[in-house]
Amino acid sequence: MNSIAPAQLIENLSWRYATKQFDSARKIPADQWTTLEQAMTLSPSSFGLQPWGFVVVTDPKVREKLRSVSWNQPQITDASHLVVFCAKTNLGRADVQRYIDRIAQVRGVPQDALAGFRDMMLGKVEAPGADNLPWSQRQVYIALGFFLSAAAMLGIDACPMEGFDPAKYNEILGLTSQGLTATVIATAGYRSANDSYAALKKVRFEPSDIIKRV
Amino acid sequence: MNSIAPAQLIENLSWRYATKQFDSARKIPADQWTTLEQAMTLSPSSFGLQPWGFVVVTDPKVREKLRSVSWNQPQITDASHLVVFCAKTNLGRADVQRYIDRIAQVRGVPQDALAGFRDMMLGKVEAPGADNLPWSQRQVYIALGFFLSAAAMLGIDACPMEGFDPAKYNEILGLTSQGLTATVIATAGYRSANDSYAALKKVRFEPSDIIKRV
Repeated sequence: MNSIAPAQLIENLSWRYATKQFDSARKIPADQWTTLEQAMTLSPSSFGLQPWGFVVVTDPKVREKLRSVSWNQPQITDASHLVVFCAKTNLGRADVQRYIDRIAQVRGVPQDALAGFRDMMLGKVEAPGADNLPWSQRQVYIALGFFLSAAAMLGIDACPMEGFDPAKYNEILGLTSQGLTATVIATAGYRSANDSYAALKKVRFEPSDIIKRV
Repeated sequence: MNSIAPAQLIENLSWRYATKQFDSARKIPADQWTTLEQAMTLSPSSFGLQPWGFVVVTDPKVREKLRSVSWNQPQITDASHLVVFCAKTNLGRADVQRYIDRIAQVRGVPQDALAGFRDMMLGKVEAPGADNLPWSQRQVYIALGFFLSAAAMLGIDACPMEGFDPAKYNEILGLTSQGLTATVIATAGYRSANDSYAALKKVRFEPSDIIKRV
């Protein structure tokens, strides 16, 4: 652990904003992008089950297609990178087993020692009426939070976006057959000097309206 | 902006884990806690609408009550701080107007200039069949991600938790009458030297299983 000072954290989180206009000439260097991918991967999730997939789209032709089903928002094509945060659509026993296998592998523990944990997860994902997709989608938003926060720490601009057609994204990216559905997206890169939004004051309700104490 | 090095970011995100046993004697210093509250408040949300409330519970008696409806998990009482991340239950026109009022106030712009933005938001939250609660709950998970990421950056341990009874939380904390519902919680403080989970290797699927490239 190599913690940072509170003031530096707040400075970076205050610096970030939902970038409306990216400098299309500037690309995120490979080592920085790798770091952002690692940050996504390190996101926590319920049980650690990682009910997600992240699609990184850099192909300009695909980005054009996606823009056409994203209200023509320029960030889709102009940002250095686009990530489609997806939730698993058929979360179930196979995913739980795959995760248990992975724990056994990484930690070198026998499957038997993980039976209780496996059964607890199965009890959740196989419960009658289990609402696994909305649950997975909520987890995906943690990963979005980690991504945006990490970008801010690295001095990379980003824009989280919900204004797109998930069904069309699934179609264009072939997600359905992979058991994934597009849930939320983020574009990342560097703000254009012309983005007037960059200079606007950040608007938050008064802390006393948002934070209650008991 | 005062960015940090990629290695430091990854070091801190790798250091964090879902703390199972907190050192109940150690409290988060006030300035650090204030920073975590600021980080939550700075979380992005769709439209910037902040459809949430954060309840910080420090009263030991209330924490005992909450523990009894949280599978008796010790973190609820032993951690330095407990935050209940809540979503707004009746998100609608009044919330949109309150937000517009706040933008006008913070940025010093006339209400008229914000009419288009207001109408766009109303089109979303007042759409027939609008599913505002699940949508707000997803936003709440961004704030959870910001909180957990910020804690890791500051060297503060935390544990996100879904294993609690939201209806009982709403009752104990009087949330329903405030238009809020408990969505997810996090405990924060410092790991106990006895927490064997701290030494376990972090388990993530192979990046190639999680990240696709197009």
